[in-house]
Amino acid sequence: MAYDPRDHQSLTFFDAPPRFAAGADTPRDYLERCLAVIQSREPAVKAWVTLNVEGARSAADASTRRYSEGKPLSRIDGMPIGIKDLIYTKDMPTEMGSPLYKGNHTNQDSASIRALREAGAVVLGKTVTTELGMSHPGPTTNPFDSSRTPGGSSSGSAAAVGAGMVPVCIGTQVVGSIIRPASFCANYALKPTYGAINRGERQGFSQSQFGVHAGSLEDLWSVAAEMAARAGGDPGSPGLYGPSQLEPACQPSRLIVMEGEGWPLVDDRARKAFETFTDQLEEMGVRILRRRDSPLIEAFERAISQASALSRDISAFEMRWSLENLVERHPGEISESLMGRLELARKMTLDEYRSFLTARESMQRSHMALGGMADALISLSSLGPAPLMGDIAGSDPGIPHATGNPIMNTPSSALWAPTITLPMLAVAGMPVGVQLIGQQHQDARVARLARWLRDQARPVLVS
Amino acid sequence: MAYDPRDHQSLTFFDAPPRFAAGADTPRDYLERCLAVIQSREPAVKAWVTLNVEGARSAADASTRRYSEGKPLSRIDGMPIGIKDLIYTKDMPTEMGSPLYKGNHTNQDSASIRALREAGAVVLGKTVTTELGMSHPGPTTNPFDSSRTPGGSSSGSAAAVGAGMVPVCIGTQVVGSIIRPASFCANYALKPTYGAINRGERQGFSQSQFGVHAGSLEDLWSVAAEMAARAGGDPGSPGLYGPSQLEPACQPSRLIVMEGEGWPLVDDRARKAFETFTDQLEEMGVRILRRRDSPLIEAFERAISQASALSRDISAFEMRWSLENLVERHPGEISESLMGRLELARKMTLDEYRSFLTARESMQRSHMALGGMADALISLSSLGPAPLMGDIAGSDPGIPHATGNPIMNTPSSALWAPTITLPMLAVAGMPVGVQLIGQQHQDARVARLARWLRDQARPVLVS
Repeated sequence: MAYDPRDHQSLTFFDAPPRFAAGADTPRDYLERCLAVIQSREPAVKAWVTLNVEGARSAADASTRRYSEGKPLSRIDGMPIGIKDLIYTKDMPTEMGSPLYKGNHTNQDSASIRALREAGAVVLGKTVTTELGMSHPGPTTNPFDSSRTPGGSSSGSAAAVGAGMVPVCIGTQVVGSIIRPASFCANYALKPTYGAINRGERQGFSQSQFGVHAGSLEDLWSVAAEMAARAGGDPGSPGLYGPSQLEPACQPSRLIVMEGEGWPLVDDRARKAFETFTDQLEEMGVRILRRRDSPLIEAFERAISQASALSRDISAFEMRWSLENLVERHPGEISESLMGRLELARKMTLDEYRSFLTARESMQRSHMALGGMADALISLSSLGPAPLMGDIAGSDPGIPHATGNPIMNTPSSALWAPTITLPMLAVAGMPVGVQLIGQQHQDARVARLARWLRDQARPVLVS
Repeated sequence: MAYDPRDHQSLTFFDAPPRFAAGADTPRDYLERCLAVIQSREPAVKAWVTLNVEGARSAADASTRRYSEGKPLSRIDGMPIGIKDLIYTKDMPTEMGSPLYKGNHTNQDSASIRALREAGAVVLGKTVTTELGMSHPGPTTNPFDSSRTPGGSSSGSAAAVGAGMVPVCIGTQVVGSIIRPASFCANYALKPTYGAINRGERQGFSQSQFGVHAGSLEDLWSVAAEMAARAGGDPGSPGLYGPSQLEPACQPSRLIVMEGEGWPLVDDRARKAFETFTDQLEEMGVRILRRRDSPLIEAFERAISQASALSRDISAFEMRWSLENLVERHPGEISESLMGRLELARKMTLDEYRSFLTARESMQRSHMALGGMADALISLSSLGPAPLMGDIAGSDPGIPHATGNPIMNTPSSALWAPTITLPMLAVAGMPVGVQLIGQQHQDARVARLARWLRDQARPVLVS
């Protein structure tokens, strides 16, 4: 089933509550339709690790009763949601894509997952992640071509949304684990400002975050906002700002094309599609700024030119201690790519790590310096469409990377900057996303710009 | 055994390695002497939850071999250390002062504990904490008067060091959980700059930190530095700066007396002892600045006048989600004081929390404005000597607090400022600490000032 953005219908939830209120539909029926899609598509897509069907039905029935009493808890009451299997859930194990965590029952909800339940959402299951959220892939396939990767590490979350199994899944990103798979699977997705959505127990990285994969911008925003309104952000962070309903569209006046170090590696057809898309925006009155247009932009591009190595090294140092525990308990049972990261970390000194943090801060300052120049950065969300399963081209030395290259995503991760990807492009029958990147804490503003692009711009197809 | 700082001998380790190298002593013998003190004092003091005697003996023997080969791993190779029972250890359960975590085996070392082992330290056991590190007390008694509290939440760590059972224990502090018990138990203790010592999995609070209780400044500093040199600070933090050996003493030129909101509540005898101490410093050429001496100091005092309520509320909001999980699984099994904190959190909104964060930032700015005015702040480390067990005077409304009032500690916690307490005072035969508080990341500088006070100033006794 080749992807054509002109007729692709993703699953939405925001239009359902009026039907629930009118008695024309119920959260239970909505859930059953999701389960039917899962039954039909899951054998090929393999997006789920665990499904809690009975728990979900019971939660959906409770939601149905609330709607019949005219008392839904929030805009997302009754919404079936999948949770990336790195995140703690009280009713399902958290296996983290590793046989070493098989049957790992934490018996608790991560703060944001508890917040989802308090908002009435229906936690349906856990979605496949790569091994510990790193490079080694799980079994999930791309919903638009089962010979291709769904991306990672939020593989199952991106694929479940792409296949229309659920309207929303929760993902996580340290480097490129939300935006890249969302690009490959035709999702809308939000990687928020660093700290803006409460990571609960998963605070091990200084640039990791929870985010949202969705079939629509409306649902994406409401889920992010409902989580943050309850559980806030990380300890010490002000949390995501904005109301629970997606705000009105806002036309960008100026957008800066971010190339990043990935630009020379971009697939030619994807580049053509992106340039056709930005040409279209210029015709609509949006000024498109490029690195040759300003020394500030050129300085920013130079500042982010080491973002991938920096992200890899910072993350390796930060995960060393938990990996050492694991390797000691289970020698020989860690993947080659994860051992590669551990070896990298073992060679690093604290002063090297400190110098990487300083370089990251410089990068962030270069980005802030662009704040007054344009509404946002715009770029491709991935180098091109999803590569074939098992293709490790573009991997780091010693760290095989089989879910696509995250190089287009490392800048916004290191910048701690809010990023939304939109499924606006198709290349040879596969989806490719366009990403908007804003200044820290401007997540709601990025969502308004994204809404304008979605409503006003035409998708671009390149065969 | 009344406390007299003039003849109190605390247990030191820094002087042992030369004896180990000369063959006049061994880490195993050092450990056996610690075990003998534990055997004699533990029935009354009750500092330990778990002792891993065989594991410690085996680690001490390995250390003994390294010294005999002339290859110790660090300055703390062979040092027996106790770990507060909130922190993960691979070889002992982590019970967190709560029956709900009885037998909770995490099977992993927290990053800093693993770093201790890599430095050759001998992890001897887990020390008593209050319930989840909050207010509800454990069984530990004060080593200088068993009718009195050791303070909390690092109750067992402070008491074990105070009783000379071990030269060093690791503690944690969110509000006043290291410095206050150290004051009550005649410890030297360091609460470092926020983030400077890697908290591993315990990153749930935006002002919690790991710290060190010790019988000497030398051991205090080496343990902190050896942990940080390996595991660094929290993800994204540069970690503790400084060499592994305590640097030379540095005479303060100017010190600012910090009163804080606790000043009117200070025990009269403790106030007299503190003023005698600062008078002595003035005679030695240290200029002592007070709030009437500068509008900047007065502004700072006004800024920190809400530190206790702010710390309580920020922490309550941040712990709400993990508490909700616990209460749901174990209804009715949480202490009154912890339920009081949960009720407080449930009433708070995200915008209230954000406003508290903003107020805390203002407080920090007021402190930074004093950076050029003096070498450090100086104050009492507690309102006075340890209160009687069960005395809940000074508790927050609805939150009984039976390990002493942390009000002298809330400012430096909220300021994220490095703090060292020294056992320089005695009031009616019980220890009381004097604390020095520096600017963020100036931990090593505070240690040098503390060393000068210890070496040059005389302890003060008030009966």
